[in-house]
Amino acid sequence: MQDLFKKAWERIKDSNHIVLASHINPDGDALGSSLSLYPILKEMGKKVTIFNATKPLPMYLDFLPNFDKVTDKLPKNYDLLVSFDSGSFDRLGIEEKPPFLINIDHHISNTKYGDINIIDSKAASTSQVVYNMLKANNVQIPASSAICIYTALVTDTGSFQYESVNDKVFEMAADLVRCGVKPDFVAKMLFQRDRLSRLRLLAKAYETIELTCDGKVAFVEVTKEMMEITGAIKDDTDTIVNSVRAIASVEVACMLREDDDGIKISLRSKNYADVSKVAIKYGGGGHVRAAGATIKDEFDFKKVKEMLKEDLCKIVKEGE
Amino acid sequence: MQDLFKKAWERIKDSNHIVLASHINPDGDALGSSLSLYPILKEMGKKVTIFNATKPLPMYLDFLPNFDKVTDKLPKNYDLLVSFDSGSFDRLGIEEKPPFLINIDHHISNTKYGDINIIDSKAASTSQVVYNMLKANNVQIPASSAICIYTALVTDTGSFQYESVNDKVFEMAADLVRCGVKPDFVAKMLFQRDRLSRLRLLAKAYETIELTCDGKVAFVEVTKEMMEITGAIKDDTDTIVNSVRAIASVEVACMLREDDDGIKISLRSKNYADVSKVAIKYGGGGHVRAAGATIKDEFDFKKVKEMLKEDLCKIVKEGE
Repeated sequence: MQDLFKKAWERIKDSNHIVLASHINPDGDALGSSLSLYPILKEMGKKVTIFNATKPLPMYLDFLPNFDKVTDKLPKNYDLLVSFDSGSFDRLGIEEKPPFLINIDHHISNTKYGDINIIDSKAASTSQVVYNMLKANNVQIPASSAICIYTALVTDTGSFQYESVNDKVFEMAADLVRCGVKPDFVAKMLFQRDRLSRLRLLAKAYETIELTCDGKVAFVEVTKEMMEITGAIKDDTDTIVNSVRAIASVEVACMLREDDDGIKISLRSKNYADVSKVAIKYGGGGHVRAAGATIKDEFDFKKVKEMLKEDLCKIVKEGE
Repeated sequence: MQDLFKKAWERIKDSNHIVLASHINPDGDALGSSLSLYPILKEMGKKVTIFNATKPLPMYLDFLPNFDKVTDKLPKNYDLLVSFDSGSFDRLGIEEKPPFLINIDHHISNTKYGDINIIDSKAASTSQVVYNMLKANNVQIPASSAICIYTALVTDTGSFQYESVNDKVFEMAADLVRCGVKPDFVAKMLFQRDRLSRLRLLAKAYETIELTCDGKVAFVEVTKEMMEITGAIKDDTDTIVNSVRAIASVEVACMLREDDDGIKISLRSKNYADVSKVAIKYGGGGHVRAAGATIKDEFDFKKVKEMLKEDLCKIVKEGE
C-alpha cells in the first residue's frame, strides 16, 4: 500500500489540472473524501475541479469547506482524475474515459477501473485511505481538509459504531482533532439540523410497524399519502428502516415505499441474515446487511408483504 | 491531578473491603465507571462490593461485565467507599458516612464531599478520570474493565458528539480498543435493543410537535393515554425531547409529560439559551442545556404551554 500511496502522489504532483470526482448520489464519505484534497492541491498550485454529477447535492453536507465549488460540469482539458468511494466507473456519471485515473476506495466490490487503484477494504471510510495516503507522503493536513476527512469517517461509521471501527480509526480521529476539527461542530451540522417534516413522517410510518417470524422480521410502510400530508421528501425516509431494525427482537427490517413506478423495498439485517439474496430475487441488489429493490408496477402493500414474509423468514432461519 | 491519582491509589491498595458506589438512577457513566474497577480490585485480592441504591437498574446496561453483582445493600463492615459520577453525597442514597471516601467525578458542580476528591470537569466522562488514574499508577486494564470505561465514555458523549470530545478522548478510545473493546459490540448493545413500544410512543408524540417563536421553540406532548395505548414505560420518553431539539430551526425543545402528580417538563437547548432559568422558576433545576421541573397538580397542557411559551421565547431572545 505504501508504494501505491507514493506512486499516486507522484502522479498528482506531476499533474496540472486535477479533477476530484465522487459517485452519484454522494454520501458523506464520497463528498468528504473528494473535498478533502482540494485545499491541499490548491496550496500546491494546481488547477482543481471538484466534480459530482448529482443535482442537487445533499444539503446536510453544505458545511464542508468548498462545498460550493462542486460542479456537475467536467472541464474540457484536464490531465488527471481522482475518483473517491466509487465502486465502478459508471457510478461516476462520466461519459469519456479520463486521460489518467487514480481510483481511491474502500469497497471490496471495487472493479479496479483506474490506472492506479488504491482499494483498502479494511478501511472504515474512503477518507481513511486518503488520510493514509497523505500521511505516507508526509503531507500536512490543513483544518479545511481535516474536517472533510473526519465528516466522511463519522458518516461512514455511524458515529464510530460499525464493525470497521478499531484503534487506527480512533487514532486518526485524534490526529484530525489536532489538525483543527471540532467533533461537536461536525455532529451538530450532521445531526442537529433535522426537518419537522421528517419527524411527522416518522410518526405516520411507525404506526404501521408490524412484526412477524417470532418478532425477527419487521415491516414498515411509507405511502404517498403520508409523504403528502407531512410534506416529507424522499430523503426523509432514509433512516426509517434502520430505526425499525434497532428493535431488540428484529434481525431483518423491511421498509416498503410507494413510488411512481412501484413499491420500493429497503432491507436491513442486524447480525446474520443475508438480505442481498432477497433483493436480487426481486431484481435489486446490495450488500449482506443492506439491500433493496423496486417491485415494478405493483402497488398492493399487503400482497408484497405476504410475498416477502416468506423470503425474509427463510433467510432468518438460514442464518440462525 | 497526578498526586491525587497516586494518593487515591495508595489508599485503595491499603484497603481490604472496598465499596464502589454510583448515584441513584445511574446512567452509563455512573455504572460503567463503578464496574470498571471491580475486576482490577478483585485481581488485587480485595473484597469488593458494587453498590447502587436504585432498583431496578437500567437494563440496557446489562451487558457490562459484573452487572449482576451490583447490589442495593451496603455491607456492614468496609473500610473504603469510592463514589463515581455523583455530584453530591446524598445522590448516593447512603445514610451513614463511610469510614473513608474517595470521590471521583467530572461534574463542575461536585460538592467535594470526599476525603479525597478527584474532580476533573474537563473530562468527557467520569470513566475518563478513572482511566487517567489507572494510567497514572501503571495499572494494566483488562478487557472486562475497558468495556465499562468505553461504554461510560460513549454514553456520556452521545457517541463522540459532545463538546467534551477532543484528541485525548479519541486516544483513550484507541487504547481501550487495544485492551479488548469491540466498539461495534458496545454500540449494538446500547442502540440496537430498542423497544417497539418506544417507536409506537414516538409516533404518537411526534404528531403533537408544535413550533413557536419563529420556529426556535418546540413543544411536544406525552399523555398518559399515549403511554397506555402503546404500552410504553417512562424510560421510553427519554430521547423524545432530544429528537425535537434536533430540528434545524429549534433552539429550545420542551417535552410535557402527564405524570401522576402533575405535568413534568423537560427542557433542552441547542446553542445558547439557558433553560435552567425556566426550570428553576417552576421549582426544578438542571444545567444550561438540559433542565426540568414538575408543575404540580396541573394537568392542563394548553395552559402550561401558554405559560411556558413566554418564558422560553424570553430566554431565546436573551441568548441571541
